[in-house]
Amino acid sequence: MLINEIGKTGGKLHTGRSRNEQVVTDERLYLKRKIREILDLLYSIQKRIISLAEDNMGMIIPGYTHLRRAQFVLFSHYIMSLFWQINRGSQRLAEVANRVDVCPLGSGALAGTTIPLDRENIRERLGFARISENSIDIVSDRSFILEALFVLSLIMLDISRFAEDMIIYSTEEFNLITLDDELVTSSSLMPQKKNPDIFELLRQSPAKIWGHINNLFITIKGLPATYNKDLQEDKLPLIHGINVGIDTLKVFYEALGRFKFLTKNTYSRPDDYMFATDIAERLVNQGLPFREAHGVISKLMTDSEQNNKSLKDYSDAELAEIHPQLNRNLFNGLDRVTSVNMKKTVGSTNSNKVQRQIEKSKKILMEMENIYTG
Amino acid sequence: MLINEIGKTGGKLHTGRSRNEQVVTDERLYLKRKIREILDLLYSIQKRIISLAEDNMGMIIPGYTHLRRAQFVLFSHYIMSLFWQINRGSQRLAEVANRVDVCPLGSGALAGTTIPLDRENIRERLGFARISENSIDIVSDRSFILEALFVLSLIMLDISRFAEDMIIYSTEEFNLITLDDELVTSSSLMPQKKNPDIFELLRQSPAKIWGHINNLFITIKGLPATYNKDLQEDKLPLIHGINVGIDTLKVFYEALGRFKFLTKNTYSRPDDYMFATDIAERLVNQGLPFREAHGVISKLMTDSEQNNKSLKDYSDAELAEIHPQLNRNLFNGLDRVTSVNMKKTVGSTNSNKVQRQIEKSKKILMEMENIYTG
Amino acid sequence: MLINEIGKTGGKLHTGRSRNEQVVTDERLYLKRKIREILDLLYSIQKRIISLAEDNMGMIIPGYTHLRRAQFVLFSHYIMSLFWQINRGSQRLAEVANRVDVCPLGSGALAGTTIPLDRENIRERLGFARISENSIDIVSDRSFILEALFVLSLIMLDISRFAEDMIIYSTEEFNLITLDDELVTSSSLMPQKKNPDIFELLRQSPAKIWGHINNLFITIKGLPATYNKDLQEDKLPLIHGINVGIDTLKVFYEALGRFKFLTKNTYSRPDDYMFATDIAERLVNQGLPFREAHGVISKLMTDSEQNNKSLKDYSDAELAEIHPQLNRNLFNGLDRVTSVNMKKTVGSTNSNKVQRQIEKSKKILMEMENIYTG
Amino acid sequence: MLINEIGKTGGKLHTGRSRNEQVVTDERLYLKRKIREILDLLYSIQKRIISLAEDNMGMIIPGYTHLRRAQFVLFSHYIMSLFWQINRGSQRLAEVANRVDVCPLGSGALAGTTIPLDRENIRERLGFARISENSIDIVSDRSFILEALFVLSLIMLDISRFAEDMIIYSTEEFNLITLDDELVTSSSLMPQKKNPDIFELLRQSPAKIWGHINNLFITIKGLPATYNKDLQEDKLPLIHGINVGIDTLKVFYEALGRFKFLTKNTYSRPDDYMFATDIAERLVNQGLPFREAHGVISKLMTDSEQNNKSLKDYSDAELAEIHPQLNRNLFNGLDRVTSVNMKKTVGSTNSNKVQRQIEKSKKILMEMENIYTG
Repeated sequence: MLINEIGKTGGKLHTGRSRNEQVVTDERLYLKRKIREILDLLYSIQKRIISLAEDNMGMIIPGYTHLRRAQFVLFSHYIMSLFWQINRGSQRLAEVANRVDVCPLGSGALAGTTIPLDRENIRERLGFARISENSIDIVSDRSFILEALFVLSLIMLDISRFAEDMIIYSTEEFNLITLDDELVTSSSLMPQKKNPDIFELLRQSPAKIWGHINNLFITIKGLPATYNKDLQEDKLPLIHGINVGIDTLKVFYEALGRFKFLTKNTYSRPDDYMFATDIAERLVNQGLPFREAHGVISKLMTDSEQNNKSLKDYSDAELAEIHPQLNRNLFNGLDRVTSVNMKKTVGSTNSNKVQRQIEKSKKILMEMENIYTG
Repeated sequence: MLINEIGKTGGKLHTGRSRNEQVVTDERLYLKRKIREILDLLYSIQKRIISLAEDNMGMIIPGYTHLRRAQFVLFSHYIMSLFWQINRGSQRLAEVANRVDVCPLGSGALAGTTIPLDRENIRERLGFARISENSIDIVSDRSFILEALFVLSLIMLDISRFAEDMIIYSTEEFNLITLDDELVTSSSLMPQKKNPDIFELLRQSPAKIWGHINNLFITIKGLPATYNKDLQEDKLPLIHGINVGIDTLKVFYEALGRFKFLTKNTYSRPDDYMFATDIAERLVNQGLPFREAHGVISKLMTDSEQNNKSLKDYSDAELAEIHPQLNRNLFNGLDRVTSVNMKKTVGSTNSNKVQRQIEKSKKILMEMENIYTG
Repeated sequence: MLINEIGKTGGKLHTGRSRNEQVVTDERLYLKRKIREILDLLYSIQKRIISLAEDNMGMIIPGYTHLRRAQFVLFSHYIMSLFWQINRGSQRLAEVANRVDVCPLGSGALAGTTIPLDRENIRERLGFARISENSIDIVSDRSFILEALFVLSLIMLDISRFAEDMIIYSTEEFNLITLDDELVTSSSLMPQKKNPDIFELLRQSPAKIWGHINNLFITIKGLPATYNKDLQEDKLPLIHGINVGIDTLKVFYEALGRFKFLTKNTYSRPDDYMFATDIAERLVNQGLPFREAHGVISKLMTDSEQNNKSLKDYSDAELAEIHPQLNRNLFNGLDRVTSVNMKKTVGSTNSNKVQRQIEKSKKILMEMENIYTG
Repeated sequence: MLINEIGKTGGKLHTGRSRNEQVVTDERLYLKRKIREILDLLYSIQKRIISLAEDNMGMIIPGYTHLRRAQFVLFSHYIMSLFWQINRGSQRLAEVANRVDVCPLGSGALAGTTIPLDRENIRERLGFARISENSIDIVSDRSFILEALFVLSLIMLDISRFAEDMIIYSTEEFNLITLDDELVTSSSLMPQKKNPDIFELLRQSPAKIWGHINNLFITIKGLPATYNKDLQEDKLPLIHGINVGIDTLKVFYEALGRFKFLTKNTYSRPDDYMFATDIAERLVNQGLPFREAHGVISKLMTDSEQNNKSLKDYSDAELAEIHPQLNRNLFNGLDRVTSVNMKKTVGSTNSNKVQRQIEKSKKILMEMENIYTG
């Protein structure tokens, strides 16, 4: 590869060189190119996330904690949470790219060389940003591979969580989303089934890269200084690890456009239930201490559940029995839209805040465009 | 802790808050403080490395690859390789610190809150740099813990390699260094023994943190979105992991000043052997292609070894017999000092280059001082 | 501990001993006792699983693949799958116990001792099954710790999968099971919520032990022969790892009795859907090749779904249109009970086969009783 | 593969089958064959170890703890420590083989099948020892892969430690062994170097398999019951993991015959030093408490080292000054051979005990032969 990149100069490259410095130069050139490719993919993914958020503005879905319905949120808010996860990945990878961008040539096997090489000139021809500072250090440093794989594995980790959501949300029981046919396959035995294979594979993705990181980390631990042959075995983690990462991101990109949240679904429990926190916070805004408000509404919810009774079926008298400060006004206008927009804080699911969030994310992408494609 | 940090405001903090956001705020406050402590330690270590390099300028030691004597290098060059390793760690940690420095408060359990909180005001009081952008994302993100531990583990990885060197170099067989009494302990059974316990523990250090990272990584994989109770188990990795890292760095700092390279050692083989590359490169500078020069000197070295003959014992005639371009002039003035200073490249072990390397490293420390202590 | 176990003899134990052999003897004594405790726990868990299977015989639940409804199965069959997982764990642990049961005393630091110790006598007093065969090997072998932790981690892995089922099945959307109040906790913010904390923690459990295994594995990799101080750091993995395992098993045991499968649930789709494989296999039994039968029923199911039509609503004419061999007889008597009992193979969900499975499992437990408590 | 193994029957195998059970049957057939291959390799390795032990009986080498010279041991004792490590691996693998030897066919996708298959007949044709007991359990159990890889990784772990010894012992500084030319390669830059590449790669070997185990372990954690597509990704760990293990064992087998311990080496320190424990134990046998004896000899050794004085140069008067019970008789006849044979305990380095150890190991191999090749 080295030879390809620098043409004729390559022929003379051998002079005064050790395999030690050549291998690591090659690896850095390779990784620079691949990181660029990954950054482009992340950028495309972020763009698609924003599109999804904009195209579905106003759609409300149940938000979960502990896989239990918690509060209604905008789909756009939900999907934008992915934007920020990818964004951290992109930011981390750019930082790693900076550390990868170092030219080791001229370091010899460990001591430098007596051949009077112009390292800056070689660096420039190979397109590196900086030359390495210490020949002993650079010939056996592999931390740039570890950190590139690590950043990828963090991105896969977020993707695995999103995939888990998609798998669960697309069950007939949850019935929150439908998956396009491209994302499912049929069963070999059971004629009626549609399995969410793509998201299952995405859920698995961090495992593969994590295996490679463990491999390389253990390889390096406790090695004597400078190059040891053990390091030769960094190729599988580096090349397979990066490729797995890239393939996963491509699949993820495709998958992002191929599911639909259903606005109507078969979940039978009345929405009331999901407004509990809103109602409790109304009590707080009326001056009740939070702990007390929480207790009161907790009692109301238990009563409602046990008697299979909707909030609107309660009379003021019944409410007062549960707690003197309870009354029907507290439920005024409570529906999904109101609940979402009652949220006030920056970064919340309130429509205006989500709109602002999207604006901010677009600015970030624009800046990226200037850096990466500019 | 939260309560401590912000005093009276803490009392009201509960309003509209979920444990989800509070826990993660606490963890970020904790980590910010600890990262600061680690950065200070890294700075002290780097300073000590520079002192060691300056105080021992001129001392020459054998450099190894594959744990075989390769070429002579300055001790200062060898020890400075550690500087750059720590420096990458310090740089990475500063980048992580930036991502840790985010205030989640106001995110509620996942959706934000209807309580009209001034998130910027809270952020300022708590001393965070930024507020989080998306409530769904921030309540269950733990990647900031993973990356802090990861950066620590990379530092430990370098330390484990240095420790391996110290253990091997301080054997009676290598006899390259002596360890101060503080670094060794005696055997419970064998009265004559001095065991390099401290460096053995330093060699082990990456394993502990790596275990914690694996724990947390596996915990997170495939979790549904937002908070799940599984995440509660991030405390052991976070707290024990960081503490192990800090303790290791303190021990490493102490150990750095407590070994001495021996200028005279018992290694019997003549130095000639280590000049092979220098001689081959002289041939190259005389116009011989590198591969041929390498072959010629390889032959000479085999002959020298088999006949137990020093280079200065060869006559020009004998040399010419091995290869016509071989002659005694090639060995002119070859000694340890010359060998080291024959190296020409920036970043090599040449005394002037090492001097420049040290100057550069001091500038870097000075800039750090301005940032961290300024 | 050693001192406790062997009383007065302990006082003389020091003679001719090295810490190397003493530490590892202590660890083996500790692990023997803990493995015994774990085997007892596994036995109790298996017993409870059988009780659950017997007490609920006849209850039918949907079985899932890819988290999609696949075929109906007996709850007893489902829960008995856990029995065999635990059984493998128990079998593995008994094998490990055998390798732990080795007395190292008399091995000195690495070479043995000149003190004329009767190793067999010491072994007997300490209750070990065998003495070690090679002093160099035994003082630094830690594989018995690794394999004990590994076997535990495999058990936790199965538990984490079961926990995931319980979390998903107990959502309001799945509504397949209810969790007793002891297994859930309420939300700090949202008054209506009941979170399945216990199962979330069980889902997390393999991560902790796996972290410890990684720690110890990395510690050992590449160490020179016999004892090195690095090995001192095996205490955290050993003691915390085993304790976490025991605590998890205790919690799991308690959790096993505290959920109930609901016989009626709110899932709206007609059962027909789940009989697809049964119908296809009826076609196969009538001579249609499997691939063709699968295709035919696949077509039928798509038609049924698209037209929102139950199987019993199809006329023979309509069926023949889809495929000439299709007719209403194929659906004869198809209900949950029939579907389950149509299965013919040993090890299937057929009631008789499950009954036999339970008988076999009871015999296994009886044999265990004889070994462990007999 | 399935088709190959059972010939014509294979054609009908499809009937009533799911990919779920077929894949796992295939994996078990594959693993059975590979484990057999590995057991054969381990057997050959053990045989070669015994040959090395017998052929070099009487050769004495320094034994190390903490990489410090501790006591003299027989080379045969040292190399036999490997025998027992491999033996544990072999024992473990046989246990795993037993759990792999289970036929899943007839389990359908998860519930069994309505096709009246004779599972015992299929099992017999495929050569499995047992059929599986529970269809839900068997279709997604992958613990047999994890444990096979784990046992391999433990073997690699021992090999990595032996490799570290060989690398260090073959340095010019240690000069304890020479490596045959097949085990070393020359440097690309430095004409004089011979690098112990093979042992460096053996040292690295556990890392690769460990990476695969981590991959598969993480994949499985928290998956819902029965088959999920994530499990498809078990192929790389299984196939690459096993192949890496087999290749490593083949290389290790070859390497075992290709190094020689040197009886004379250049280590300068007098042997006295290594007899310290023997002398202390003589004092103990004369009635001095161990702690005191240890202290006395410790003092003597320090004096000897500081005054650069051999033990035989001390007069009785000088010795008495250090401690009244010290006298020249304590050093009587102390040489390498005596030191080794003074050891009395079973499993020690005493020649007779090592001879017995070898006899025992041969009996174990004979029993294996009966099992595996008989």
